[in-house]
Amino acid sequence: MRAVCLLSGGMDSCVSAFVAKNEGYTIYALTFNYGQRNRREIEFAKEIAKALEVKEHLIINADLRSIGGSALTGDMEIPEKGEGIPPTYVPARNTIFLAYALAYAEARNADAIFIGANAIDYSGYPDCRAEYIQAMQKVANIGTKRGVEGKSIKIIAPLINLSKAEIVKKGVELGAPFEKTWSCYRETEKACGRCDSCRLRLKGFKEAGIKDPIEYENK
Amino acid sequence: MRAVCLLSGGMDSCVSAFVAKNEGYTIYALTFNYGQRNRREIEFAKEIAKALEVKEHLIINADLRSIGGSALTGDMEIPEKGEGIPPTYVPARNTIFLAYALAYAEARNADAIFIGANAIDYSGYPDCRAEYIQAMQKVANIGTKRGVEGKSIKIIAPLINLSKAEIVKKGVELGAPFEKTWSCYRETEKACGRCDSCRLRLKGFKEAGIKDPIEYENK
Repeated sequence: MRAVCLLSGGMDSCVSAFVAKNEGYTIYALTFNYGQRNRREIEFAKEIAKALEVKEHLIINADLRSIGGSALTGDMEIPEKGEGIPPTYVPARNTIFLAYALAYAEARNADAIFIGANAIDYSGYPDCRAEYIQAMQKVANIGTKRGVEGKSIKIIAPLINLSKAEIVKKGVELGAPFEKTWSCYRETEKACGRCDSCRLRLKGFKEAGIKDPIEYENK
Repeated sequence: MRAVCLLSGGMDSCVSAFVAKNEGYTIYALTFNYGQRNRREIEFAKEIAKALEVKEHLIINADLRSIGGSALTGDMEIPEKGEGIPPTYVPARNTIFLAYALAYAEARNADAIFIGANAIDYSGYPDCRAEYIQAMQKVANIGTKRGVEGKSIKIIAPLINLSKAEIVKKGVELGAPFEKTWSCYRETEKACGRCDSCRLRLKGFKEAGIKDPIEYENK
């Protein structure tokens, strides 16, 4: 059994990949260099791939900066708090990531794709919901060679209905290296502790009753 | 009205974009440099974009060569004829292209995406069928900000049910510059006239009773 695991360098994709490993999959890790503000994510993804003992770690240059439309790839300000879909939403990001993952899975003859998408303690992104994953599953069934041949690539989002606290607990249970994960949207040396992503992470660790091993500027 | 038009440099995407222009859309052209064997396609796409008087022409580097799994990006031989899904199939290519198109459409506030996919005289690719386009439409509806806000980006494949001959006729009717289109899978100076793609093109022109303006090595 082979699985392509999307690995961003963040905690959710790390735990998601450890779920795959725990289920016995040989792992093909896939990380994107998409012009995100914080390049450290990619270094953390490499560390996580090592911990997972992956078969291969492919880092794809995905040019989202020239498309723009997001605070994560452009010049918009990173918000501390807001309502609705926030400016950190990157247009169609998970669709681009899953499209590449489908291509990679076909080319390596992988049976599944693991993605750390999470609909509970999420930031309001439309492409992190179960119904979105289902829509992409249909694309995998219809639009790939494996799908047409009846060996469809399964898109698995094992954290989709978990709270951040549950993700923390699952990660600890599976031995996920949280000290090698990065969640902050900013470029600061330590995580800022204030952006949406830091706040969700800190809340998760707090509710799980577990100490977050990374350092923060504020919390 | 704005539309993102996928422009490969081939005849189908050219005619598809001229359909969009004819319907009054302001055009944002999108072309991929994905490590295809024939780089001339991209030069042709630039010429077509000029003829379309596009608002912007974005050329994205999409690294499909490192993924592999196709005769068009790797070392496999280009076949002259075959059955089933041929080795020129590039895993999940249209899914990757449409994912980027969705991102580009969101970022430029475009209402539609035009793709030259064609299910009739096609080469047996799973991601060139109407049901595949419908599956991607659902992804657009559910997985994007515009979709969630009720202004879904429409994915239009105006040639999906046309024969190659009908595409040729429509292109002539709309003034599409066929002399600036490239269909051959090979890297030869002139089109080879023998690969699947050349043969489909030549058959289309012949059935339409129109002379193909490009030169061939064999036909």
